[in-house]
Amino acid sequence: MELFNTENEFIEWLRAKALNREHRVKAGIGDDAAVLAFRNGYEVLLKSDMSIEGVHFKAGFHPSRSVGHRALARSLSDIAAMGGTPKFALVAIALSVRSNHSWLKSFYQGLLALAKRCGVAVVGGDTAVVSQATMVDLVVAGEVEPGRALLRSGAGPGDAIYVSGWPGASARGLQLLMERPRPSRRFLIAPRGRSTAAGFRTPFSPRHALQSHLYPEPRLALGRYLLERRLASAAIDVSDGISTDLCRLAEASGVGAIVQQGLLPKPVSLELRETDWLALALHGGEDYELLFTVSSHKVPLVPRTFQGTTLHRIGEITKSEGMRLIGPDGRERELQSAGYDHFRKA
Amino acid sequence: MELFNTENEFIEWLRAKALNREHRVKAGIGDDAAVLAFRNGYEVLLKSDMSIEGVHFKAGFHPSRSVGHRALARSLSDIAAMGGTPKFALVAIALSVRSNHSWLKSFYQGLLALAKRCGVAVVGGDTAVVSQATMVDLVVAGEVEPGRALLRSGAGPGDAIYVSGWPGASARGLQLLMERPRPSRRFLIAPRGRSTAAGFRTPFSPRHALQSHLYPEPRLALGRYLLERRLASAAIDVSDGISTDLCRLAEASGVGAIVQQGLLPKPVSLELRETDWLALALHGGEDYELLFTVSSHKVPLVPRTFQGTTLHRIGEITKSEGMRLIGPDGRERELQSAGYDHFRKA
Repeated sequence: MELFNTENEFIEWLRAKALNREHRVKAGIGDDAAVLAFRNGYEVLLKSDMSIEGVHFKAGFHPSRSVGHRALARSLSDIAAMGGTPKFALVAIALSVRSNHSWLKSFYQGLLALAKRCGVAVVGGDTAVVSQATMVDLVVAGEVEPGRALLRSGAGPGDAIYVSGWPGASARGLQLLMERPRPSRRFLIAPRGRSTAAGFRTPFSPRHALQSHLYPEPRLALGRYLLERRLASAAIDVSDGISTDLCRLAEASGVGAIVQQGLLPKPVSLELRETDWLALALHGGEDYELLFTVSSHKVPLVPRTFQGTTLHRIGEITKSEGMRLIGPDGRERELQSAGYDHFRKA
Repeated sequence: MELFNTENEFIEWLRAKALNREHRVKAGIGDDAAVLAFRNGYEVLLKSDMSIEGVHFKAGFHPSRSVGHRALARSLSDIAAMGGTPKFALVAIALSVRSNHSWLKSFYQGLLALAKRCGVAVVGGDTAVVSQATMVDLVVAGEVEPGRALLRSGAGPGDAIYVSGWPGASARGLQLLMERPRPSRRFLIAPRGRSTAAGFRTPFSPRHALQSHLYPEPRLALGRYLLERRLASAAIDVSDGISTDLCRLAEASGVGAIVQQGLLPKPVSLELRETDWLALALHGGEDYELLFTVSSHKVPLVPRTFQGTTLHRIGEITKSEGMRLIGPDGRERELQSAGYDHFRKA
């Protein structure tokens, strides 16, 4: 007998059981990261994310350096979506006996390079060697000004919906990797500059797509900017695709959303069919861009670009719940979230 | 080519790479938990511990409720060994498809019962279903008065060595489970009282041994007591056996240690051969008792028992490095640590 039909059912059950209503827990299970009040100081952000071989990465496709980068980027992206500053990380790794130690070293090199660039100290963890596939659990602790964390639950009717960068590029990168598992060596090494997947002249080009997938850039500076200027009413990072993450934001806020297909960020000279591109843009995951909402009177304050990354206005929050997509012909249809649910039956 | 011969080599490499010397990191990789200075407030303790099916527990031996209890107890014990107060936990679980959801529910029930009793709020985590064995990573965040955490590195020559409770009882419990994998049902359910593995009239009895193994009690109150009274110069929890953990404490402090075999806590009417008992007491792991050192002038202040748990004085810290065991005949021999090293070749 299975007790939980979906992951959400399980999370709801757990949320009811756990001490999440305690006054020290400003946000617990169900937001991007836990927001915790320690005494007298800033609030502490804690986030845990697993990276599992065969689920989140494949040994044949992903260089170990990228696996380390992505494992940390996933958690940092959640801190970014809260407007916080990451400070510390713990790395628990159960390493497959099939992986050698140079795999482990490259993994940590990718992870530590990103950590250093973002001012994150790796302060502990746990290590084991196992006979099965490799699993990583990465925990990041950050801080944020008390009461100021950008939650998923603050969106109101009439708010504009924004997304940073080019959602779908990471999923396009994965497609390219699967078509040709051994791309040119220059894609396997993270660039040394400040920004990894930003600033490309041609979005969705093979190079941009592969970089977006292998070395996604957590939008920490953008998250801080949104918090400091008090621009965003709600925010979430795009880890499972716009359709899924916008749905999570809308549900947490008790509102609905309309997305304008014509406003979704699409490069001019894209060599993809419209339907293929739309599926990537709406449902492609692992972009780690920020999806955020802005009250209509603050819309004029939102810049077109932030540190080289374009901020795209793609739709509007509605009072009536549910998610709708308005096509180029003006016709409305339901926008269904197509994210991954570990508890859903295949 | 393997780059690391032992786990320690790997940890040393990682410690050199990670930002652990940053001023905010009061203690990072290499102590029981990371001690972190957030702004203006208490210091935050963070600890990550994995529990892997086939390594840390076996589906046939360990009831799921016990797996959940033990997963949390491992991390709480590290907070106890720092003299800290645990506050929050994150639970990442990659659940085997072979386990059903009632396994998951019992796992969390065991975990949450202990969390509630210790005032710990479970504030997040990550969940996935995998085709292989179950893996859990448990992270606890706690707090401690600034600059007061009990480190491994504070022991000095002449300090007395103490251990709480009855080390070896947990390993004895595992022996019993392996001899008879289906013990009486009363052992499979955690007791409802304040204390789980304490207060038994007959240490090392089957009941005490099984409880010590399945539902070990993290010594949080004892850790706080040692910190508040400023009694301990150094502390560590006994997770891998006295021989291994005393060696870690001595190495971190740059000292040696002498253990008196005749002072090791041994029940009067024990139905075990002397050599069998000694191996359990010295090398048996997962007791989660506290091993701590006390300056000679503070020894008179150490109580014989603390909240029903006996505190045993078992030896002395020496200036010369190395670990020695003095037998009942007065003869000295080397005390070798016999702990588990994931990177060591079998």
